[in-house]
Amino acid sequence: MSDPIEYARNNEQRHLAELQAFLRIPSVSTQPAHDADTRAAAVWLAEMMQQAGLENVAVIDTERHPLVYADWLHAGADKPTVLIYGHYDVQPVEPLDLWKSPPFEPTVRGEYLYARGASDDKGQVFVHVKAVEALLQTNGRLPVNVKFIVEGEEESGGESLAAFIPANKEKLAADVALISDTAIISPEQPAIVYGLRGICYILLDITGPSRDLHSGSFGGGINNPLNVLGHIIARLKDEEGHILIPGFYDRVRPLTPRERELLARFPLDEEKWLAETGAPQVWGEPEYTLVERLGARPTLDVHGIIGGYTGPGAKTVLPSTVHAKISMRLVPDQDPEEIGRLFTQYVHQITPPSVRINVQVVHGAPASITNLDIPAMKAAATAYTKIFGREPVYMREGGSIPVVAEFQTHLGLETILMGFGLPDDRIHAPNERIYLPNFYRGIQTSIQFLQELAEE
Amino acid sequence: MSDPIEYARNNEQRHLAELQAFLRIPSVSTQPAHDADTRAAAVWLAEMMQQAGLENVAVIDTERHPLVYADWLHAGADKPTVLIYGHYDVQPVEPLDLWKSPPFEPTVRGEYLYARGASDDKGQVFVHVKAVEALLQTNGRLPVNVKFIVEGEEESGGESLAAFIPANKEKLAADVALISDTAIISPEQPAIVYGLRGICYILLDITGPSRDLHSGSFGGGINNPLNVLGHIIARLKDEEGHILIPGFYDRVRPLTPRERELLARFPLDEEKWLAETGAPQVWGEPEYTLVERLGARPTLDVHGIIGGYTGPGAKTVLPSTVHAKISMRLVPDQDPEEIGRLFTQYVHQITPPSVRINVQVVHGAPASITNLDIPAMKAAATAYTKIFGREPVYMREGGSIPVVAEFQTHLGLETILMGFGLPDDRIHAPNERIYLPNFYRGIQTSIQFLQELAEE
Repeated sequence: MSDPIEYARNNEQRHLAELQAFLRIPSVSTQPAHDADTRAAAVWLAEMMQQAGLENVAVIDTERHPLVYADWLHAGADKPTVLIYGHYDVQPVEPLDLWKSPPFEPTVRGEYLYARGASDDKGQVFVHVKAVEALLQTNGRLPVNVKFIVEGEEESGGESLAAFIPANKEKLAADVALISDTAIISPEQPAIVYGLRGICYILLDITGPSRDLHSGSFGGGINNPLNVLGHIIARLKDEEGHILIPGFYDRVRPLTPRERELLARFPLDEEKWLAETGAPQVWGEPEYTLVERLGARPTLDVHGIIGGYTGPGAKTVLPSTVHAKISMRLVPDQDPEEIGRLFTQYVHQITPPSVRINVQVVHGAPASITNLDIPAMKAAATAYTKIFGREPVYMREGGSIPVVAEFQTHLGLETILMGFGLPDDRIHAPNERIYLPNFYRGIQTSIQFLQELAEE
Repeated sequence: MSDPIEYARNNEQRHLAELQAFLRIPSVSTQPAHDADTRAAAVWLAEMMQQAGLENVAVIDTERHPLVYADWLHAGADKPTVLIYGHYDVQPVEPLDLWKSPPFEPTVRGEYLYARGASDDKGQVFVHVKAVEALLQTNGRLPVNVKFIVEGEEESGGESLAAFIPANKEKLAADVALISDTAIISPEQPAIVYGLRGICYILLDITGPSRDLHSGSFGGGINNPLNVLGHIIARLKDEEGHILIPGFYDRVRPLTPRERELLARFPLDEEKWLAETGAPQVWGEPEYTLVERLGARPTLDVHGIIGGYTGPGAKTVLPSTVHAKISMRLVPDQDPEEIGRLFTQYVHQITPPSVRINVQVVHGAPASITNLDIPAMKAAATAYTKIFGREPVYMREGGSIPVVAEFQTHLGLETILMGFGLPDDRIHAPNERIYLPNFYRGIQTSIQFLQELAEE
């Protein structure tokens, strides 16, 4: 019986070859032409889970793409159960001509493996399958109970898993969830995402006259929906980034001194970060640091406006109906439904009677935050530290991972977001890649995590 | 020698038949497929001028569509010279399926003649040719000196005439200009437009990041050009319609008590006017009446905005560059160039350094106003009163007629805008028409005007 980490090290070349086989399957979930490929990826992954020694392996049919389930539940009732989540579907690959090697012909160049899905998320979910294999092949058992649930619609809505979770609470019951679908800071600096922002997304239509009017004949006598939209936007958020909707901040859980201290350690090079955006200045609420503003503070952004004449040159219409898309990123403990109501009430209140307005809350998802003191969080920190040789930093991510909220709501689970990607993995873009040393260290970190969790 | 007005009455059927011939020529100046037709309309009009007894008739070639010139200058040096302007080109006719009778097959239904150009402007310019014919055929002479300049690019830029005027000051020299290209209030209520607004048209581009960013990852740390645009728009004009650009109102010539009194007589049925717009409320500067706001007060309108994601559904971009089109309608004595500078300075001043802005003044034209006390204005009022049986009302039109400013600038001419159209003539739209009694009374009013002018 050898050491599982030793085993993982000795099998890196085979693990790479297997990952390449996984990546060859073009499981683009949004493109119906790839439906059979997407299913093939699920079947392939289930076979690898079976080979790794997992039990109750099942490809579960849904309305769209199948879910893959597997478990190993013999660690004992006194040991925790980890629910490992990932997704086997990938983003579309267009524009194809920007790829240096074809997206579904995984190619090693230097220390990187290039292919669609290499980092998001096939490479990262496969890490845990290989960790389980290493533990079962060397120890004949896992230190904790493990369940896998892997979906095929993460890049295309995720409705099937969203429906499956509340209907299968018993099957998915666990003590903690583990997801590897994020990036760490650099190859040397691991990171744990312990918070995600939620969202409330709004469509706004403003109508003035019933048809476009000539601004020469009517300008000055009829209110202009585009001018009104400007006033509404200006009254939603001030020029420093403070949101002006009454009640918006009421439920925001304040950052604790400890969190501010942890976030202050996050090694964000502002100058480099700014250069990557191409914007002239870093911007936002002056009372908070950039790291805090990006992950731990709510925001409001206008995502799109269209209205009036937008063709070339000059035309003098006073437009009839104009459209805006606006979202608010939320933090704990803001309630997306309440925020949608507050937004709607406020906008109705500030809209003059000289136009008609329609506010539609199209979707919402709550923010999530993982308690830094739970055993799994400590296990993750110890595992990273032992394998990467450096303590992880803690961060709150500005985007949303809807499944985290679903695990929280329906299964009562906190989630550990233990990423092995890097910020320049080019996910969703041409030439997606994974840094291979991270893939190998990921397998070792997962082994270490499961072992540490058994000790906590 | 019979009375010219009697002559006009006796020849109404022939004049209608001739107008129908004019309207059959599809002189759509913006469509190159109609270039030959547009020229044919110029040639046809020149022949009619010749037949009417005008002299020095010429079809003058330009870079695009020809100008038509004619004159009759034997009234004597003590008599004034009138420069009559009009245009023989017409708007496109699409969508064709909305026309009840084909746009270039002029059709009488009830008291209306339906055809493209019937009111704008073939029907109205032809009125003056027929008035001159009536005077010359009955009296053998005109009571004043007359020059005609008729262009073929009014609906497509008007560059050729704009270049011709300053190069032909002597040829076009006159005491007053006369244009019939506007509408009166109703068949019973004539109106004289004595003021036109000018314009200053701006294109605005705001750039934040160098590419669209994910608002989850970057929202709160990078300023959003669409939010900035909202703030800029809100700071250009307040919610009551007052423009906030410093210095904007400095040169605005105040409305005199006499003007306010004249404009108050303008019979605008606000309820009916509002119903036509479909807007929920009449709106604008509370210190001014609706009639004043529409013609005699400057405005600022956003005509178009496009930026960010404008497709269906929700997408969370933080957009890179967004675009807005904005114009200001100007009144005497605002200077469009100065207004463009004030706008640009102010917008630069209120734009935060977290975005980049580009302000482009694309064109400007000054407002114009005609002195109510000049002889030609009195002659026009008397002519309307005698023929229509009712004194005209006075109005200031909200739009621009660029040639009026060009006559003012290069020829020093004041312009009498003596319209014979009606507000529901559907100019620029399907089923354009002219109210035939107005066409006939127009000819009589033009005769009367030229006679009155000789007396003043």
